[in-house]
Amino acid sequence: MASGTVRDEEPRSRRIRRDFLASRRDLLEAAERLLAKQGGRFSLTDLAAEAGVSTATAYRHFPDVPTALDAYYTQLVELLVTRMEAVPPGPDALRRFVAVCEVWVREAVGWGPAVVHVRSSRGFLQRLRAEDPVIGRLFDALAPMLAKLADAGFIPPTPADYGVLLWVTVFDERVVVDLHDSLGWPAARIATELTGSILRALGRPAGATG
Amino acid sequence: MASGTVRDEEPRSRRIRRDFLASRRDLLEAAERLLAKQGGRFSLTDLAAEAGVSTATAYRHFPDVPTALDAYYTQLVELLVTRMEAVPPGPDALRRFVAVCEVWVREAVGWGPAVVHVRSSRGFLQRLRAEDPVIGRLFDALAPMLAKLADAGFIPPTPADYGVLLWVTVFDERVVVDLHDSLGWPAARIATELTGSILRALGRPAGATG
Repeated sequence: MASGTVRDEEPRSRRIRRDFLASRRDLLEAAERLLAKQGGRFSLTDLAAEAGVSTATAYRHFPDVPTALDAYYTQLVELLVTRMEAVPPGPDALRRFVAVCEVWVREAVGWGPAVVHVRSSRGFLQRLRAEDPVIGRLFDALAPMLAKLADAGFIPPTPADYGVLLWVTVFDERVVVDLHDSLGWPAARIATELTGSILRALGRPAGATG
Repeated sequence: MASGTVRDEEPRSRRIRRDFLASRRDLLEAAERLLAKQGGRFSLTDLAAEAGVSTATAYRHFPDVPTALDAYYTQLVELLVTRMEAVPPGPDALRRFVAVCEVWVREAVGWGPAVVHVRSSRGFLQRLRAEDPVIGRLFDALAPMLAKLADAGFIPPTPADYGVLLWVTVFDERVVVDLHDSLGWPAARIATELTGSILRALGRPAGATG
């Protein structure tokens, strides 16, 4: 096939790097499927089989399943934060907050059924203080959005740690998945209800508009 | 010893029953200590040793550790609900709600460090619909309190499933333990802040009194 020729012309080091990234992506996608299907109870061999790679290849990426799950969770938070930050600032901190919440819910509806099985028993603030990089990344994205809501007068000033803890708690994947699966709510309704609840919890008057 | 004489006069069946209940209590208390200390990774033999009973006795109560943890969690929710329901109705649904929330936080500060390790990956509403008796017991205690708040005009009417889900989410043991351990808040402050947040989330105007 023609692409074979092109590929042969590629430098060997670049091809190896590309194959490495491709098998990593396949393994992380496989981890998501296995988690959603059967929870966290699978071996690295199961993961390799689900990803369609050899067990030896899986071991080149991850020494064990917990490390693979950490990598899956890290990548997912990175993607979530990137998508949240891609929401245009716009003229209005409140409208941006609402849009960011909707991005979060739409993401959580997708990966929630997998992620509910990798949640830590440690608290959000506990991990933040232990300088967990994933939690730090999420906090650093969310705290300024709350500060902007307060600066613009939409909510009263709130300590960042309490405000962010409340936000991540109400938008927990388990809550989103539960509303989606148990009550049959579509993502848009979940986003509307949870956003209303968190804004009121943060002190925005019920029924306020604009 | 003198009590030995009294004990010898007790009917054998009653003594056996009493010893059975005592060893069960010891095993459930041991489960709480082990969970808080090392999470859920221990064997039934470890549990028996921690409780000071023989492994054979432990097996007479529980076929395996997950069953013991279920029994621990069931007993704990039963105790929590009993203590909530023991809060006097009084003249005012709001004051009772505040008192119930404080009971919850005080309980959660005590057993939270253990319970964060036995939380289910399944959603609250999902377990309610699957007729999980423990979740049903909690829902049946909480839903009428929200209805009374609404009847008395303190919050707008809220669908019971969404309102209770929000309440149990905000009062999650992980949140309570996190505020206690990471921010050093005493139980009274945690109760005040979380109760304010959930009441506002449920639609009570911020700053409202009485």
